[in-house]
Amino acid sequence: MKTKYLLPLAAVATAALLPTMGFAQEAEAIEIPSVTDEVVWIFNSLLFLIGGFLVFFMAAGFAMLEGGLVRSKNVTMQMTKNVGLFSLAAIMYWLVGYNLMYPLGDWAIEGYFSGLFPSWGVLEPVYLNDMGLEAADDAGYASTGSDFIFQLMFCAATASIVSGALAERIKLWPFLIFVIVLTGFIYPLTASWQWGGGFLSEAGFSDFAGSTVVHACGAAAALAGAIVLGPRLGKYKDGKVNPMPGSNLALATLGMFILWLGWFGFNGGSQLAMGSAGDVADISRIFSNTNMAAAAGAVAALVLTQLFYGKADLTMVLNGALAGLVSITAEPLAPSLGLALVIGAIGGLIVVLTVPLLDKLKIDDVVGAIPVHGFAGIWGTIAVVLTGGYHGEAVIGTQLLGIVAIVGTTFVLSLIVWFILKVTVGIRVSEEAELQGLDTAELGMEAYPDFTKG
Amino acid sequence: MKTKYLLPLAAVATAALLPTMGFAQEAEAIEIPSVTDEVVWIFNSLLFLIGGFLVFFMAAGFAMLEGGLVRSKNVTMQMTKNVGLFSLAAIMYWLVGYNLMYPLGDWAIEGYFSGLFPSWGVLEPVYLNDMGLEAADDAGYASTGSDFIFQLMFCAATASIVSGALAERIKLWPFLIFVIVLTGFIYPLTASWQWGGGFLSEAGFSDFAGSTVVHACGAAAALAGAIVLGPRLGKYKDGKVNPMPGSNLALATLGMFILWLGWFGFNGGSQLAMGSAGDVADISRIFSNTNMAAAAGAVAALVLTQLFYGKADLTMVLNGALAGLVSITAEPLAPSLGLALVIGAIGGLIVVLTVPLLDKLKIDDVVGAIPVHGFAGIWGTIAVVLTGGYHGEAVIGTQLLGIVAIVGTTFVLSLIVWFILKVTVGIRVSEEAELQGLDTAELGMEAYPDFTKG
Amino acid sequence: MKTKYLLPLAAVATAALLPTMGFAQEAEAIEIPSVTDEVVWIFNSLLFLIGGFLVFFMAAGFAMLEGGLVRSKNVTMQMTKNVGLFSLAAIMYWLVGYNLMYPLGDWAIEGYFSGLFPSWGVLEPVYLNDMGLEAADDAGYASTGSDFIFQLMFCAATASIVSGALAERIKLWPFLIFVIVLTGFIYPLTASWQWGGGFLSEAGFSDFAGSTVVHACGAAAALAGAIVLGPRLGKYKDGKVNPMPGSNLALATLGMFILWLGWFGFNGGSQLAMGSAGDVADISRIFSNTNMAAAAGAVAALVLTQLFYGKADLTMVLNGALAGLVSITAEPLAPSLGLALVIGAIGGLIVVLTVPLLDKLKIDDVVGAIPVHGFAGIWGTIAVVLTGGYHGEAVIGTQLLGIVAIVGTTFVLSLIVWFILKVTVGIRVSEEAELQGLDTAELGMEAYPDFTKG
Repeated sequence: MKTKYLLPLAAVATAALLPTMGFAQEAEAIEIPSVTDEVVWIFNSLLFLIGGFLVFFMAAGFAMLEGGLVRSKNVTMQMTKNVGLFSLAAIMYWLVGYNLMYPLGDWAIEGYFSGLFPSWGVLEPVYLNDMGLEAADDAGYASTGSDFIFQLMFCAATASIVSGALAERIKLWPFLIFVIVLTGFIYPLTASWQWGGGFLSEAGFSDFAGSTVVHACGAAAALAGAIVLGPRLGKYKDGKVNPMPGSNLALATLGMFILWLGWFGFNGGSQLAMGSAGDVADISRIFSNTNMAAAAGAVAALVLTQLFYGKADLTMVLNGALAGLVSITAEPLAPSLGLALVIGAIGGLIVVLTVPLLDKLKIDDVVGAIPVHGFAGIWGTIAVVLTGGYHGEAVIGTQLLGIVAIVGTTFVLSLIVWFILKVTVGIRVSEEAELQGLDTAELGMEAYPDFTKG
Repeated sequence: MKTKYLLPLAAVATAALLPTMGFAQEAEAIEIPSVTDEVVWIFNSLLFLIGGFLVFFMAAGFAMLEGGLVRSKNVTMQMTKNVGLFSLAAIMYWLVGYNLMYPLGDWAIEGYFSGLFPSWGVLEPVYLNDMGLEAADDAGYASTGSDFIFQLMFCAATASIVSGALAERIKLWPFLIFVIVLTGFIYPLTASWQWGGGFLSEAGFSDFAGSTVVHACGAAAALAGAIVLGPRLGKYKDGKVNPMPGSNLALATLGMFILWLGWFGFNGGSQLAMGSAGDVADISRIFSNTNMAAAAGAVAALVLTQLFYGKADLTMVLNGALAGLVSITAEPLAPSLGLALVIGAIGGLIVVLTVPLLDKLKIDDVVGAIPVHGFAGIWGTIAVVLTGGYHGEAVIGTQLLGIVAIVGTTFVLSLIVWFILKVTVGIRVSEEAELQGLDTAELGMEAYPDFTKG
Repeated sequence: MKTKYLLPLAAVATAALLPTMGFAQEAEAIEIPSVTDEVVWIFNSLLFLIGGFLVFFMAAGFAMLEGGLVRSKNVTMQMTKNVGLFSLAAIMYWLVGYNLMYPLGDWAIEGYFSGLFPSWGVLEPVYLNDMGLEAADDAGYASTGSDFIFQLMFCAATASIVSGALAERIKLWPFLIFVIVLTGFIYPLTASWQWGGGFLSEAGFSDFAGSTVVHACGAAAALAGAIVLGPRLGKYKDGKVNPMPGSNLALATLGMFILWLGWFGFNGGSQLAMGSAGDVADISRIFSNTNMAAAAGAVAALVLTQLFYGKADLTMVLNGALAGLVSITAEPLAPSLGLALVIGAIGGLIVVLTVPLLDKLKIDDVVGAIPVHGFAGIWGTIAVVLTGGYHGEAVIGTQLLGIVAIVGTTFVLSLIVWFILKVTVGIRVSEEAELQGLDTAELGMEAYPDFTKG
């Protein structure tokens, strides 16, 4: 064991962490005016905790979906990337992202100054308040910790979207470096424009739980990566698309179901309040619409693949359900159940139509993440105008502005980061490694050593 | 791509959906009398939301259990059927089922008239109320949306039971058509006799969370299908039962655990209220009894297979746990923990005894769904008389009446539907397709393309 | 079928259960003083119910983790053991454990006398109170049923830890007998010293959710078993460690994610109250710290295996995340997020360093349970002194006393039980069975009959 690495590593880690640990926790005690207000506060916080663990579980859902859709020789790598990306997102969102996205002062890069490094501004890490009643920093909302854990999961989901699209040929560490930039900086920046009270929010852009803010953002980062990275060897050859079937469709189906489950937290928790009859009725409505859109997306893909290709296509059905979920995410509250069905079904239709389209453009998106999260996300964001959104004021121009701003910015920034990574450390494994499989070539560990043939 | 299908399809879909989307949402604003009542209302609705997502996850549990118990050549088909059936159930229960089961007016086929088609009566789709506080349509109960999402999951579970029994030889689309009839009409009809305030409810039939209403109903539909469909090729040959072992027992075990998890919501949520100390104490008791019955069913199957066959049998243990759960479902509240253990253990015993029995009758139930959900469900419904049920009034005669009415009606109606499907579109794949495996023959997609031998 | 076994078996079962079912339920009706107190009581009970189902799901997490890390020829056995151990734990904790751990009278072996067998004392089974409001036996805490189901899951987790370490060579029934002793007696005894108000609690030992009480206890039982049982054939040969790679790393990753999910309930529920703003703020903080420690453990293992071995090691990353979780479990409330990161990262470091160490000692721990739950558990218990714990009074001496008392006692008692089992019924399968694989040799059932090679 090369213990010689241990000491310098520890020193670097300590130096990096010292300031964050030395900070005093400057919680100001608050008073919650009445028992009723306290009950509301508990319900609101509980909503974030339940939503938080449900959306957390989506990390497993993404891992299983992607692990099932890649070939068996790349499964260990896909698992490593998914555990790694979630863990790095959790750290980066604490270290930078949360305060960049929800600055206590101004909403954008400039912010309030405090702590050891006054110049840090909004880039300082998150502090949770002291233990106990004094912890509540916003008597009219919820506990900071519950808000943090809930919002963190959205940030991590953005990165999970990227990992599927770029599977089977990307190097581990450059991918994880990109995740650090995405979850620490890019997502918090663009998300702050809407959820941090930024210019999109002020302009009236409406995206309830993140069809664009989360899903299309992740898809834009994935698209940039897929372009810079290039398709898998042999995927597009002699003008033909060479299918590379996923190695475990039971696992992929499990992943889809876990994501569907997590989406109840994703959309339901985005109500941000559960302390009144009206709020819990809204959450119930959100649950019902979310479920309906997923069902409609799945059925649409089931019927359409049967009609188009003469055979129902399970991977399309899985992606259809997910596209239905992404589509309803921008506005899961205002639609009737019938409209939620239509919105979700169109999401499923979009996936069936655009997965082949990407292949025509020779953009190799291994799991269909760009159609599911990107195209269906854009559709869902536009579909808000069908109801006007829960505020009743969403208009097409503002919706398009939000899409262009977030997708465009994420795409351009991601393109730059991917390009820098490409020309510096390189982002793609060698041809031999790709053909052999990343598991043995890069990690020396097969996912299914007892099963795999040849 | 055969885009020529798109236009007519869209036209049909629009025509079908237009009336449901044109309906006004005629919510009447309610007033919740006091803060205390509002808190109760929130707790009740929250119970349905938590119960709803737990029971939703049972769809994944069924899929994994069944996917693990079929041979690898039929796994893609099993996944497709399970995603499809849940999605169709979600749509049908909205379009017809919920209002058929819980009509706002009378309980049965005739009902109140409203909307575009006055003649629809109870067959009209569900409308959730408006957003916000006005949404509460029953100030003494819970939000309509939370009740809808919770009840929907029970309807879908009924269909999941069927898919396992008929695996490995049924065609996809006829199966899904049956699901449409079952979830839209048969289950809502028979369930309304008990939970919609119908004649069984009035007669004093007691079935807390659905040992008969859900599980035996699903098993009856499965039994009818298994009879009409016939056994798998080679299953019963020369008087011998030819074992066809499941392809992934780890997955099947996961499915069982997910179902066990979901059952906390299934039985706990069926308390239908969480806004008082008494209600939450009851839910806690239900959790404890449910867990105990599952444990006892598993241990019973473990011990009995060791005694009978000299070897513990994992698939029996999994089904034993599930049979324990089904057995306690008719009355998870009234028994002591000791009695819950006995009820669950007898459930496990029933599975061990009746799985071979079905084989003797040459009824080919691939995953053991009929013993688990049918026989154990009937046992659980009868076992209510051991405590008298939570109302203390259950008697054997009424319990048998309920079983006969629901199981008998479901069986006869299902038999008719299966028979019609058989003589019209046909329900069984060709011999070649069955031998080759449904995944490649019917869907052109293997579940484990890298692993499967031969 | 050997039905001759049925009658005597039923007779024994009835005799054993009769007293437990004959007991009257001597619930005393309580009064909850005010509406506010009732709401608090509901929130507290709800916390245990949510925590309960989350920690329940950890049983699936352990099963999948272990099932993924053993070779394919032993997967059916691993599944059988995990379903069996959870089920037996559920029964034993009811029959003996809970009242041994939380006696209504004195905390230790001697206790109050009641029921049919006055001599049973604290060894009598658990009775839940009557249905309804009267059920509440402690107006200032929560429903008995919710406390029971929550605490039961901790007991079962202890046994799950053992099953992984001893995989691939232990006989089924001796293992299950050990589980009966561990969950019925050993764990409840040592846990009562802390959580039952025993001498460790009085001495000021601080272990919030069980880094030592649960995890190191389970690891100590596993270590004793691993020593008595000996390593797998061929594991240590000619001074070399022969790697025996796990058969399904996707499944193992799923197991890790499920455990991470469950840990929100494990640590969050251990706040034991959710009925005030301060409590829910604390739970939120616990969620955030728990997540951070897991992420840090995973990243630490990822970075360290890359540095030490030149390749990221997925199994180490999975165990690193789990070690982070175990490490923060003794005190998930008091640390800042930065300190939680450090505590979790050191947990990950410990796993990377000590997994090879155990191999040097020729102690064969198949899944790394002893490093993860034992060494990281001890580290986490010591790390409480960094903050002083939530009471601010934890000191190193008392922490060490608690570790020595619980780990030492569990180890010695387990060693005795394992030794008795070894010299009586034998605990190890034959060499032939081990080489052939336990699934076919012991159970006659392959987990993956369609895949496995050779």
